Amino acid sequence: MSKQQDSVHDVAHLGRVELLTPKADRSLWYFRDVLGMEVVHAADGSVFLRGYGDYAAATLKLTEAANAGVGCVSWRASSPQALQRRAESIDQTGLGLGWNEHDFGLGRAYRFRDPDGHLMEIYYDEQKYVAPEPLRSTLKNLPQKFTGRGVGVRRIDHLALLAKDVAANREFVQQQLGFQLREQVVFDKGKTEIGSWLSPSPIHHSLAYVMDIEGGNGRLHHFSLWVDNREDVLRAATVMRENDIFIEAGPSMHNNSQGFYLYSYEPGGNRVEVYSGSYLVLAPDWEPVIWNEEERGTGVYWGSALPETFLNYGTPNIAVAEQSPRQKIPVFDPH
Amino acid sequence: MSKQQDSVHDVAHLGRVELLTPKADRSLWYFRDVLGMEVVHAADGSVFLRGYGDYAAATLKLTEAANAGVGCVSWRASSPQALQRRAESIDQTGLGLGWNEHDFGLGRAYRFRDPDGHLMEIYYDEQKYVAPEPLRSTLKNLPQKFTGRGVGVRRIDHLALLAKDVAANREFVQQQLGFQLREQVVFDKGKTEIGSWLSPSPIHHSLAYVMDIEGGNGRLHHFSLWVDNREDVLRAATVMRENDIFIEAGPSMHNNSQGFYLYSYEPGGNRVEVYSGSYLVLAPDWEPVIWNEEERGTGVYWGSALPETFLNYGTPNIAVAEQSPRQKIPVFDPH
Amino acid sequence: MSKQQDSVHDVAHLGRVELLTPKADRSLWYFRDVLGMEVVHAADGSVFLRGYGDYAAATLKLTEAANAGVGCVSWRASSPQALQRRAESIDQTGLGLGWNEHDFGLGRAYRFRDPDGHLMEIYYDEQKYVAPEPLRSTLKNLPQKFTGRGVGVRRIDHLALLAKDVAANREFVQQQLGFQLREQVVFDKGKTEIGSWLSPSPIHHSLAYVMDIEGGNGRLHHFSLWVDNREDVLRAATVMRENDIFIEAGPSMHNNSQGFYLYSYEPGGNRVEVYSGSYLVLAPDWEPVIWNEEERGTGVYWGSALPETFLNYGTPNIAVAEQSPRQKIPVFDPH
Amino acid sequence: MSKQQDSVHDVAHLGRVELLTPKADRSLWYFRDVLGMEVVHAADGSVFLRGYGDYAAATLKLTEAANAGVGCVSWRASSPQALQRRAESIDQTGLGLGWNEHDFGLGRAYRFRDPDGHLMEIYYDEQKYVAPEPLRSTLKNLPQKFTGRGVGVRRIDHLALLAKDVAANREFVQQQLGFQLREQVVFDKGKTEIGSWLSPSPIHHSLAYVMDIEGGNGRLHHFSLWVDNREDVLRAATVMRENDIFIEAGPSMHNNSQGFYLYSYEPGGNRVEVYSGSYLVLAPDWEPVIWNEEERGTGVYWGSALPETFLNYGTPNIAVAEQSPRQKIPVFDPH
Repeated sequence: MSKQQDSVHDVAHLGRVELLTPKADRSLWYFRDVLGMEVVHAADGSVFLRGYGDYAAATLKLTEAANAGVGCVSWRASSPQALQRRAESIDQTGLGLGWNEHDFGLGRAYRFRDPDGHLMEIYYDEQKYVAPEPLRSTLKNLPQKFTGRGVGVRRIDHLALLAKDVAANREFVQQQLGFQLREQVVFDKGKTEIGSWLSPSPIHHSLAYVMDIEGGNGRLHHFSLWVDNREDVLRAATVMRENDIFIEAGPSMHNNSQGFYLYSYEPGGNRVEVYSGSYLVLAPDWEPVIWNEEERGTGVYWGSALPETFLNYGTPNIAVAEQSPRQKIPVFDPH
Repeated sequence: MSKQQDSVHDVAHLGRVELLTPKADRSLWYFRDVLGMEVVHAADGSVFLRGYGDYAAATLKLTEAANAGVGCVSWRASSPQALQRRAESIDQTGLGLGWNEHDFGLGRAYRFRDPDGHLMEIYYDEQKYVAPEPLRSTLKNLPQKFTGRGVGVRRIDHLALLAKDVAANREFVQQQLGFQLREQVVFDKGKTEIGSWLSPSPIHHSLAYVMDIEGGNGRLHHFSLWVDNREDVLRAATVMRENDIFIEAGPSMHNNSQGFYLYSYEPGGNRVEVYSGSYLVLAPDWEPVIWNEEERGTGVYWGSALPETFLNYGTPNIAVAEQSPRQKIPVFDPH
Repeated sequence: MSKQQDSVHDVAHLGRVELLTPKADRSLWYFRDVLGMEVVHAADGSVFLRGYGDYAAATLKLTEAANAGVGCVSWRASSPQALQRRAESIDQTGLGLGWNEHDFGLGRAYRFRDPDGHLMEIYYDEQKYVAPEPLRSTLKNLPQKFTGRGVGVRRIDHLALLAKDVAANREFVQQQLGFQLREQVVFDKGKTEIGSWLSPSPIHHSLAYVMDIEGGNGRLHHFSLWVDNREDVLRAATVMRENDIFIEAGPSMHNNSQGFYLYSYEPGGNRVEVYSGSYLVLAPDWEPVIWNEEERGTGVYWGSALPETFLNYGTPNIAVAEQSPRQKIPVFDPH
Repeated sequence: MSKQQDSVHDVAHLGRVELLTPKADRSLWYFRDVLGMEVVHAADGSVFLRGYGDYAAATLKLTEAANAGVGCVSWRASSPQALQRRAESIDQTGLGLGWNEHDFGLGRAYRFRDPDGHLMEIYYDEQKYVAPEPLRSTLKNLPQKFTGRGVGVRRIDHLALLAKDVAANREFVQQQLGFQLREQVVFDKGKTEIGSWLSPSPIHHSLAYVMDIEGGNGRLHHFSLWVDNREDVLRAATVMRENDIFIEAGPSMHNNSQGFYLYSYEPGGNRVEVYSGSYLVLAPDWEPVIWNEEERGTGVYWGSALPETFLNYGTPNIAVAEQSPRQKIPVFDPH
């Protein structure tokens, strides 16, 4: 039995994403008032938020930092045993960083870096959300009231990370986290892996690695939040325009993933997607769909081509960061 | 040339609806925070509101009163000449009340009652809305920012009035206001006019008269506000449930009018509809669609049958009002 | 009283559009199988079609021709008297062509050209659609069954014509057809009228004139058909992609008109829009919204910028037509 | 480690549902022309169909039979080893029926009955769908073209079975198939289990057991197919009405499951749901949401109450079947 098969099902889902922002107040406004997330907690320069449908106490950690980017990406294990298995296995790769015990809402978490340097962790115990009275939903199976504020994102969905070597990082999460490969963009007759989309669950992708053509490390392409209907994405575009948020692309439909997307930049500079559609993958023997140059085209099924920035902008923004001495401090780790 | 032809095109559209409420604060909360309307002005026990797409300064006047119901229904004339023609013509019917000059946002208005006693007026001059800076839209052709608050109704659409004698009232607005008859429900082989839907514009109906089976006078069946997509009506239902608003019927689709409806009761007791769909009528020689008992059925194209209350509840609620000495004061006229 | 005021309300609505196509079979397939329109009649090289919600017998006339483009644009008058008034008035402009009596589904029609040379006509009498048994709707107020085939357009909505002199054509339809000006794009500090959107009814625009930067005459920019919800436009995009129809732009939202658009080229080469959203204009004293260079931007509220072809491609395609001797025959007039 | 934990993840998803129909031709018309499914194969009185997004060759088997009802319910195992484990474990319960090798599109399948008598099977090998040229999608990751015909269901989603003893059947699939319990309706202060919703994957429920208050055995409550947006469900209602399909309830929104539903009866009598919305369950330690009488109410979050038939009608229809001698043959097993 391969290493990959050992790890299948050990990770249940994406649990939390930490975003770094040099404009903490404006970023908070974006996630709370424009996207409509709920603030749950604040401590040590971080604010914790959640979508109304997230069952965990907090799924987004917004941390003030010198540069925009992604902080720690947290994966929930399927069981305490699975967590232990993953920690032991990752430890042997030399990429482990040890246990972290003190983050709001989470139990002990085993931290590590992926080959590209992104900080990640895996945990099992967590605090479930219990809504205070004004935020209790009239639906017993909804953890929190749908407030109708702003876009009204339901839950976090996935994130896309930039990586110098997509294959190496893809193999790492396949083997160490048991993710199933769903789709790939491969150019040069199979030689250049441009992007790979993976997931530990039937959600089409919880993590994508996309080539960092600027040659950075540990950078974020985008973080994505879910709404239930395509119409919600259209409405989100109007909400964003009325709030002077920069829309980079969409609303429109990808060919790979079939995702219905709207990409904006939150005030701190991170690319954030409001997302719906796509498709579930339930087949245990799913054969990855591989797109070559011609098939991939502009990455759009219908709607206009993605702009140049979609290919070369990530956070931290290297061009900007190079001009800043603060860049010397690794920007992807706020700790 | 018939009287009706004289008046065609003299009325442009429904301009404002005054609703009476015994729970002014709660009703205001409903229209502002749940429906997402904007407060523009307040004076003399009335609050003036608007939908984000209404071009006039205020389209809903909310007035504190002993009982729920409809106050004055204001129609905008097509020109000063049309206003004068209508005033002179109505004056001859004996239903005229004379000119009113002092309402917020409107120029002089000629007031009258329809045969059932509902207070109405017709005006031409009005104050167009100019949004203050925080409410300016990023769309130059949108009078006000789409705030995304609550349901987010775009504009007022129509209202339905109860009447003891539907035919008499229907003929009055055909002749005096030039409304075109769009659809009718007629029972007993053409003898009993249950309801008639009329409009001065291609909007399917701006006014409906429905038989008051309780035998009241001057009562309101419902007041309706528009959203652009059916999905907005579905979203409205969730917003209402999360705010403990009573939903009487829908979201569902009528057969007559093809309207996609959601009927709730605002806290003051008036039935309010969030509405989309239906169809425009552009034909100058439109032949009214007439539904008999069998064709009309439950009034629903798909979705469950309308509840009993939909047929017998109106405001003021006669059953309640009878128990109250305040009922002696005619409830449909707050002046 | 000005000429314009005389003509107000004399035209009720856009009644029929004739499109010319060099690929009649493929164009028919597009309108019938992709857009889902119904074929009603065929004669003399033309096929007559309709949307399921159109009340007239036929609203699209598809005519085989050497080049793509628009044939005759038919406007329905509000009354026989209005028709007579318009005919007499247009006759005095020298642009009248006389009465046409023989088109399927229409009574006598007064033909004329607008200053740019587009063929138009105005009529009052027409044949209402009576659905054959298999196409009868279960809705009494719907002229035809919703078949669910393809996109399922409900009705024709508007058309945009290219013109060398936008102002001259705009003034012509304001004065002779009583259209109200809704929006304009005017560059060079008010000196260059790039486009004007007009309508005889509360529909935002039934006719647009846009500058023909290629210097042609009588050309078509696009013809537009309505669906009820934005979601229908999204679905249309997928239907078009699955049928290998070229999508030029959208689905996305314009700033001027607030229209939610999807532009494709039908196989004959004409640009066809599937359209929803926008807003009704009910004000009799509507003040046109005028956009300058900066305000207009790309013409898009959200979604990607319109492609270059949107500005310079029209039918007949001059570049192509110049290479063809058949171009000597005026392509905008199939008669 | 408990039996339940052994079986977790051994079943991947619902693979196929067999429906029995006494009106095979009309049922075929319903699934092919009204729901828009594709016919893949026919043999021995059965027709095999699929949704455009299903990756397997066939997901619905429609079999002619004396009475309506459900035939065999097929679950796909996660691996050959998982299949073997499940077969061995079920064999020990005494409910096993042995291996079946000959069904179209499936490899060997281990058959069994649940305690209530419903026929089920579990398999691993299967034939993936390869679209013939006219049905190839322009999307590489979509197994089949979206034809736009009828409702256009994407994939099968779940089914609900009636059972005399909900708890016994619920425990069976928890233990033997590793399903996670998602929600329950329990009356009488926890004593009467009215219904339980379960799933082997993050799909909210793939199987529900609901109390058979008529006291039947092996009966079907409904079979459900997925569309991506709530708007698709609304459109489905119109498609059904135009095709004279009986709509029992909806479109509307359940409280438990948050499903957006439309229940119709296919011509053979089986209740079929067109479905969207709901929510994914990703938590490995999900705590079932339990609704009592008061919380459950009518089962509807908004929209009208479900009709009486929703509680007491299932297939085969016992009332009808009792009058038929063919009922003596167990109707849930066509083999």
